[in-house]
Amino acid sequence: MSGPVAAQDGSRLPDTILYGVAYYDEYTPVDRIDEDFRLMREANISVVRIAESTWGTLEPQPGVFDFTHVDRMLAAAQANGISVIVGTPTYAIPTWLAREHPDVLVTRPEGQARFGYRQNMDITNPHYREAAERVIRALIAHVADHPSVIGYQVDNETKAYNTAGPNVQAAFVAAMRERFTLDELNDAWGLNYWSNRINSWEDFPSTTGTMNASVGNAFAAFQRDLVTEFLAWQAGIVREYARPDQFVTQNFDLGWRGHSYGVQPEVNHWEAAEALDVAGVDIYHPTQDDLTGAEIAFGGDLTRSLRDGQNYFVMETEAQGFPQWTPYPGQLRLQAFSHLASGADMLAYWHWATTANAVETYWRGLLAQDYQPNELYEAAQGIGADIARLGPALHGMEKHNQVAVYVSNASLSAMDWFRLPGNNGYNEVMRPFYDALYRQNIEADIISPDGEADLSQYRMIVVPALYAASDEEIERLNAYARAGGHLVYTFKSGFSDENTQVRYATQPGAIAEAAGVTYQTFTEPQEVSLDTPLYDLEGEALNVRWWMEFLHPTTAEVLARYKHHSWPDYAAITRNSYGAGEVTYIGFMPSDALIAGLLADTAHRAGVTWHEDADWPLIVREGTLRDGSRVRYLLNYSRDAIAVPADLRGGTSLLSQADFQNTDLAPWGVAIMRIED
Amino acid sequence: MSGPVAAQDGSRLPDTILYGVAYYDEYTPVDRIDEDFRLMREANISVVRIAESTWGTLEPQPGVFDFTHVDRMLAAAQANGISVIVGTPTYAIPTWLAREHPDVLVTRPEGQARFGYRQNMDITNPHYREAAERVIRALIAHVADHPSVIGYQVDNETKAYNTAGPNVQAAFVAAMRERFTLDELNDAWGLNYWSNRINSWEDFPSTTGTMNASVGNAFAAFQRDLVTEFLAWQAGIVREYARPDQFVTQNFDLGWRGHSYGVQPEVNHWEAAEALDVAGVDIYHPTQDDLTGAEIAFGGDLTRSLRDGQNYFVMETEAQGFPQWTPYPGQLRLQAFSHLASGADMLAYWHWATTANAVETYWRGLLAQDYQPNELYEAAQGIGADIARLGPALHGMEKHNQVAVYVSNASLSAMDWFRLPGNNGYNEVMRPFYDALYRQNIEADIISPDGEADLSQYRMIVVPALYAASDEEIERLNAYARAGGHLVYTFKSGFSDENTQVRYATQPGAIAEAAGVTYQTFTEPQEVSLDTPLYDLEGEALNVRWWMEFLHPTTAEVLARYKHHSWPDYAAITRNSYGAGEVTYIGFMPSDALIAGLLADTAHRAGVTWHEDADWPLIVREGTLRDGSRVRYLLNYSRDAIAVPADLRGGTSLLSQADFQNTDLAPWGVAIMRIED
Amino acid sequence: MSGPVAAQDGSRLPDTILYGVAYYDEYTPVDRIDEDFRLMREANISVVRIAESTWGTLEPQPGVFDFTHVDRMLAAAQANGISVIVGTPTYAIPTWLAREHPDVLVTRPEGQARFGYRQNMDITNPHYREAAERVIRALIAHVADHPSVIGYQVDNETKAYNTAGPNVQAAFVAAMRERFTLDELNDAWGLNYWSNRINSWEDFPSTTGTMNASVGNAFAAFQRDLVTEFLAWQAGIVREYARPDQFVTQNFDLGWRGHSYGVQPEVNHWEAAEALDVAGVDIYHPTQDDLTGAEIAFGGDLTRSLRDGQNYFVMETEAQGFPQWTPYPGQLRLQAFSHLASGADMLAYWHWATTANAVETYWRGLLAQDYQPNELYEAAQGIGADIARLGPALHGMEKHNQVAVYVSNASLSAMDWFRLPGNNGYNEVMRPFYDALYRQNIEADIISPDGEADLSQYRMIVVPALYAASDEEIERLNAYARAGGHLVYTFKSGFSDENTQVRYATQPGAIAEAAGVTYQTFTEPQEVSLDTPLYDLEGEALNVRWWMEFLHPTTAEVLARYKHHSWPDYAAITRNSYGAGEVTYIGFMPSDALIAGLLADTAHRAGVTWHEDADWPLIVREGTLRDGSRVRYLLNYSRDAIAVPADLRGGTSLLSQADFQNTDLAPWGVAIMRIED
Repeated sequence: MSGPVAAQDGSRLPDTILYGVAYYDEYTPVDRIDEDFRLMREANISVVRIAESTWGTLEPQPGVFDFTHVDRMLAAAQANGISVIVGTPTYAIPTWLAREHPDVLVTRPEGQARFGYRQNMDITNPHYREAAERVIRALIAHVADHPSVIGYQVDNETKAYNTAGPNVQAAFVAAMRERFTLDELNDAWGLNYWSNRINSWEDFPSTTGTMNASVGNAFAAFQRDLVTEFLAWQAGIVREYARPDQFVTQNFDLGWRGHSYGVQPEVNHWEAAEALDVAGVDIYHPTQDDLTGAEIAFGGDLTRSLRDGQNYFVMETEAQGFPQWTPYPGQLRLQAFSHLASGADMLAYWHWATTANAVETYWRGLLAQDYQPNELYEAAQGIGADIARLGPALHGMEKHNQVAVYVSNASLSAMDWFRLPGNNGYNEVMRPFYDALYRQNIEADIISPDGEADLSQYRMIVVPALYAASDEEIERLNAYARAGGHLVYTFKSGFSDENTQVRYATQPGAIAEAAGVTYQTFTEPQEVSLDTPLYDLEGEALNVRWWMEFLHPTTAEVLARYKHHSWPDYAAITRNSYGAGEVTYIGFMPSDALIAGLLADTAHRAGVTWHEDADWPLIVREGTLRDGSRVRYLLNYSRDAIAVPADLRGGTSLLSQADFQNTDLAPWGVAIMRIED
Repeated sequence: MSGPVAAQDGSRLPDTILYGVAYYDEYTPVDRIDEDFRLMREANISVVRIAESTWGTLEPQPGVFDFTHVDRMLAAAQANGISVIVGTPTYAIPTWLAREHPDVLVTRPEGQARFGYRQNMDITNPHYREAAERVIRALIAHVADHPSVIGYQVDNETKAYNTAGPNVQAAFVAAMRERFTLDELNDAWGLNYWSNRINSWEDFPSTTGTMNASVGNAFAAFQRDLVTEFLAWQAGIVREYARPDQFVTQNFDLGWRGHSYGVQPEVNHWEAAEALDVAGVDIYHPTQDDLTGAEIAFGGDLTRSLRDGQNYFVMETEAQGFPQWTPYPGQLRLQAFSHLASGADMLAYWHWATTANAVETYWRGLLAQDYQPNELYEAAQGIGADIARLGPALHGMEKHNQVAVYVSNASLSAMDWFRLPGNNGYNEVMRPFYDALYRQNIEADIISPDGEADLSQYRMIVVPALYAASDEEIERLNAYARAGGHLVYTFKSGFSDENTQVRYATQPGAIAEAAGVTYQTFTEPQEVSLDTPLYDLEGEALNVRWWMEFLHPTTAEVLARYKHHSWPDYAAITRNSYGAGEVTYIGFMPSDALIAGLLADTAHRAGVTWHEDADWPLIVREGTLRDGSRVRYLLNYSRDAIAVPADLRGGTSLLSQADFQNTDLAPWGVAIMRIED
Repeated sequence: MSGPVAAQDGSRLPDTILYGVAYYDEYTPVDRIDEDFRLMREANISVVRIAESTWGTLEPQPGVFDFTHVDRMLAAAQANGISVIVGTPTYAIPTWLAREHPDVLVTRPEGQARFGYRQNMDITNPHYREAAERVIRALIAHVADHPSVIGYQVDNETKAYNTAGPNVQAAFVAAMRERFTLDELNDAWGLNYWSNRINSWEDFPSTTGTMNASVGNAFAAFQRDLVTEFLAWQAGIVREYARPDQFVTQNFDLGWRGHSYGVQPEVNHWEAAEALDVAGVDIYHPTQDDLTGAEIAFGGDLTRSLRDGQNYFVMETEAQGFPQWTPYPGQLRLQAFSHLASGADMLAYWHWATTANAVETYWRGLLAQDYQPNELYEAAQGIGADIARLGPALHGMEKHNQVAVYVSNASLSAMDWFRLPGNNGYNEVMRPFYDALYRQNIEADIISPDGEADLSQYRMIVVPALYAASDEEIERLNAYARAGGHLVYTFKSGFSDENTQVRYATQPGAIAEAAGVTYQTFTEPQEVSLDTPLYDLEGEALNVRWWMEFLHPTTAEVLARYKHHSWPDYAAITRNSYGAGEVTYIGFMPSDALIAGLLADTAHRAGVTWHEDADWPLIVREGTLRDGSRVRYLLNYSRDAIAVPADLRGGTSLLSQADFQNTDLAPWGVAIMRIED
């Protein structure tokens, strides 16, 4: 059983791994707080997250505060030795605020939001800011000294919610005036086209009707900046009250595709994370036969990369979630340790018990609306016991990955203006490249032009669809290759600059020399394949999907050409020696199998080492513990037992042996091995 | 030839079966009223419905009335011995009203309606009410003494048209204040969630943005109440003028799915029918190869049940309807007698002749826009002759069904917030259960918590998806079983209370004891089947669709368990002895074949008797005539002749023998047998 | 190399074939105008189109003009011997106009447009008109005397953009008051239906909410009239400045279905073309395996017919266009000569080089954003050289076609209110009839009730779906047949009158006598075929699609009946001797193969002559040159060589022989043969 988590000397972060739930006394149908915290304690829950979204309860009328629920939860937590993270409640506004200041409701291009949903406010609105500041100050002042409070979450899954009303337009114009002269603006954004030229700042039209991708993307970046500013503003207020041993975090979320999927288009996570002590994230993913671990690994690798390798908190993940996600027996446990395998130092379910009203009655917590122990609760008990026992040893695991995937908010937003066939966008290109690494057990960091990562630490960097990037940004990547790195660019990289202006240059623009390849023309492929059975692949695995650039090698070697009746001569994949390194260029969207082959081949050439004898569904993830020993997570993402290769079975098993039957890892099984090198 | 229908002594209703059309002198391209009524008379049409939707013609300017068309129709009807039902014209507002009072156009959540379509007004708007009252009074005063007028229809297919403007919001808040204190309201609707708490009645936000199903369903029920009030208000005005021998009805319509399909979400038919003398309905259904009779039977059984078994009027059905509904030879006749077989005492086509303008030129009447006799007219002549001859004997047939299907507006609206996979909702669950009875010739009533039916009259009650119901409502059903009834509940029943709050109880809540079963978890089934070949079914017939509750029997017997690789232990269908009766619980959506097997099995156990030797396409429907004799309708819903079992061939055939060739019922054939028991 | 094109004596039109591009110095990323015009000259480009859509650059502030870009282009054109067509810039409004007069943004039924896209203004708005007139006068006055300017384009792809605000509604009511009395209006439009009757002109409601097809179509015709008036107004202003040797044209576009497809619903091209000296059009079509030539032929035949056979300009077609349209090697050349084969006297690409910003960066010009020669440029060089050499001989080719396809804006708009199954509309019926002629090499004109064509010049006229037509219009067609013509009507023809009122007559109304057939009923066919193997067709080729009229022949011969289990007796296709001619009536939508058979059969009976030994993909198109000789274009629309029948190989080949290998036309090959008869 885990006690309240004490901060390390000089650190705001706990010295173990936290296992938690979100808890809302406000939503509970009867007074059962003591029973609930007793059940939590018995399940080895060590932390609860409270108070986000409960503004209407906290402040029933303007300036009138009622901390009853908060106090009850703090008391119950303290009594049961459970730590508390307090969220500012600002992402769901109270009824009185909407009534008193209807302008707080966000104006989007399609009109003003209505009261009802969360995240319906203009985060720049002064009335909203004033009210938010008042409740944050009152709440944090009230709780800061409570011994169970270990940290704070500022707001939740914050975005700008596409705020685009006149006030935001004016702020955008002001920001552009700082950056551009009118002539520069007209040139950079190509505003002469269709008579959109702005000859006076007063003529600057609302962006809501724009058909210009440069305008649209500049505005999208501006909206992301609003989020960064907002979170920093909240963090600043909270820090006025926080104790030195309390941390500040946020609950980021990823780009969504029915579940957590890719880079978040509406937030620049790298910039927004600077105001925090630790990055938090929610990761929601399919289960049952669709549980692959890829979202857990991707979300973890990305969040761990936000603050240059610092471990992170999974502020939310599902216990049951959607009806179709009810986990098979064993899956909840596999999921939990998969998060730890990526470097999570906290894992919390949203939420303790399922709400009885509103829209999320089918988004199920650990318990149903009956608040009674069930199969999931029993699984959580076992997980909690293991985390309580192993947390002090496992927390703070470090990764030193040899490979990185380079992602870009700017390219993502730009490609949303020019979707690929099948409505595929940036994330649909990027994820298969990440996933090919994941499934081959090549661990990777996720880096961004907006982060601080030192490129030279990697042996290979994969750059999917870097559609919009400045010359300087591309030069940093090219320089990495010149200095000996192995760089993999895909189609569409380098196409436009940081203003989403297509380059006045033969493509791929600033990449052309490094990649040793040019093209002027492209098309959407129809029944196109490759002329070479790369990596012994055949049939559909060689199909050319979505896009087809007509590559002319200049200095590059051709790995494969397109097989097409009318265009037999164009290169499809090239590799170029460049300085001390190599640049691979892929002119189309390959099959998953071909991506896997290409990345493994390139990784070999780059000298990357990994466990080549294991592939998904047997996932191997590793790190270095604070005592210097290595730890290896073995994860079986299948409902069949799986044989673990001999060289992966070494070390001391930290979990019970139950998952191993001789050399087999049980269905949905987990093993954690400590390896003294 | 049928004369004007005289009311019975002491009764407002006719003493035969009416056969009619809607007629609009207003829409007729030339003056041909005498010719039209002559053609009607020759087709044995006994009633016309007039005047609904003709407000603009009746009252060309505010307060200026022009009864020319009405008078012409009344005179022609009288001259040809045809009765008339006069509709109040209020469901299509005149141009001058929209111009003078633009606020009469309904404000829906998505904005205000525009002039053009019918049913575009706010039925609570005082300007609309004032104008409607004026035209109703003028019209009814004008026609009430005409001897051909036998009754009135108030408005038409009335709904609240999703009226949701500020005036309606204010009325809703006022209604909620009558029902709840603020604390009760916040608790019942779970408004703490996402900060929707209302701490002052003045803060009550518009429901148009709500994400709270409790709010949404309360507002939907409020809108249904507006319809009930509106129809009672109109009926009251009409009754000030109506003669004692004239009836008041309405033309209800069913939930629509390209045709009449299920329970109407926007009207509480049981409550709205109280203000009427007789319930009317329109039933529109596919024909050609899709003619099954199920919609005719369902619509009839439902409407007959509105006023506790009183027979009903089919105010509208198609002669031709949509282009794809042109009936095969024989179908129009089969359809007509199918309505009578359910207890219709009137059957009218919409409409006499097809309109030449606007949106419904392809919604074809008995005649095309040429107003000339055609194949359909000839079919109607034969139908009309039979009805004229048999109507006095057949009208007022009574049914005493042993089985009921229990339906709920509240559950329907609640499930619209939580649709099943494939976007299936309440009606998509309910209808297959009704249809399984229909196709096996187990006749059923349709009962509702809002009606007055005595449950104890039934041997079996089928309760599909009773998602939202009070404890009292469920206790009435359970008590029925305890007293010896056979109750069949499906998945999702009992889940939430009358405020759409999920029960704070292990599910299925108040049903758990009666059904002898509990569950805490559920999922959407993927390739799940049953482990038992119930009723000798196999393959797809055992598939588990849409939903899958993980049932634990407490006292119930397990009829089948789920066949699933990871969850082999949960029960799927259970049966529980409960008091003197039995409760069957079905935890998923079965195949049509399995529903049929389950309901027949349960009906046997309940002692229900029916014609087990006939199945669809041979439909058998029966009743008791006023003279005490039994009548049996035999209906062949196929384009092949069908052998009629010997025990069904008894009695005196009331129609010509043409439909019988030896023992075979002709394709699309009908027989009506009078059986002197 | 082509010099500037001089006008013929007394003519405003050039005496050769123009080969051009649209050019925008305004959009060019660097100063490269001399280089660009040098490249054009080397590619034998003889004309550039400039200035449309560049208002914001031309007039940076209200009344302040900057002709820098125009002057640069005129100077460069002159220096390189290239002619210039100057477009008025009015189809994309400048930012200052939208700011100063927000009312210029068009109000559509769904709301007011926003600034950003082109074609977002109310073309009737007085502020827009005032500003447009100012810029037109300034621009044309500035350029008119420049020797390189050969003509003007007024606006571009002009429509009314569904303008429907209060000012337009008022103008519509005023126009209707000119046409109708109130009683006539109510009768003609059937406004009594659903109480839409207008009893005072002041009550006339906005059409934006109408459900009445008569209202909707009258308003659509009114919007088309706005376009006609607008273009005539612009042409009038331009002519105040234009030299006698300069022409005025417009760039019409066709109905769109992902590419140029059919009759344009929003413009009455026949009426709008009256204000021009020559009709211009843009034609965009798929390429690669979807290149059939049908859109090129259809667009050409239609545009050539606008001004009674006068040749036309292709103002825009794609060089590359959409990514999926990158042409195979050879296709660009085939496309170019296909335009000439239909009578185009100008062919211009949109555009020279691809834009680097906004929404059309993937709509690719001849060059990419790198402005460097590429494969397409090289192909254009060859095409340009041939056109420069042959243009003086080939231009002004005349066609004397024996067949016409009769199309109707009114029927198109009417059918949009009553779409066929599969959402098929007028163009989807019409195009397969046109295409069946095209693919059999039966050349056709496209005629319209709004044009001036003398019907008697044709041996056969095909009339698809003439859904809305006056008695007079139908009588003109019938009279054509009585006088000896061969008329082919399809289903739905004659159904409603010019007010979209369905005829008060047995259908097909005024066609019934001429066609010798009547019907009263119809349906959507389900698995219906024909009972006769017409033209030796079988299987799917005999399937009955979309619609099925139940035809009764009166005097007509039955060519085929429907094969249907329940309706075996109705005729499907009939042929009637009528006066000296014949009328064929088709009661359903036939397969493409059956259409081909029916039209060839009818053409034979009508004495039409054509090259029956060639079928698509070998296309033969012919005309008479100004010197009286015949010219024959042979076009191979396949990627295989194709044998040319002996009788088609005669004459003198005007292109190089490279396309002929012995008797074979090369893949995507072209031959132009001059035949001295």
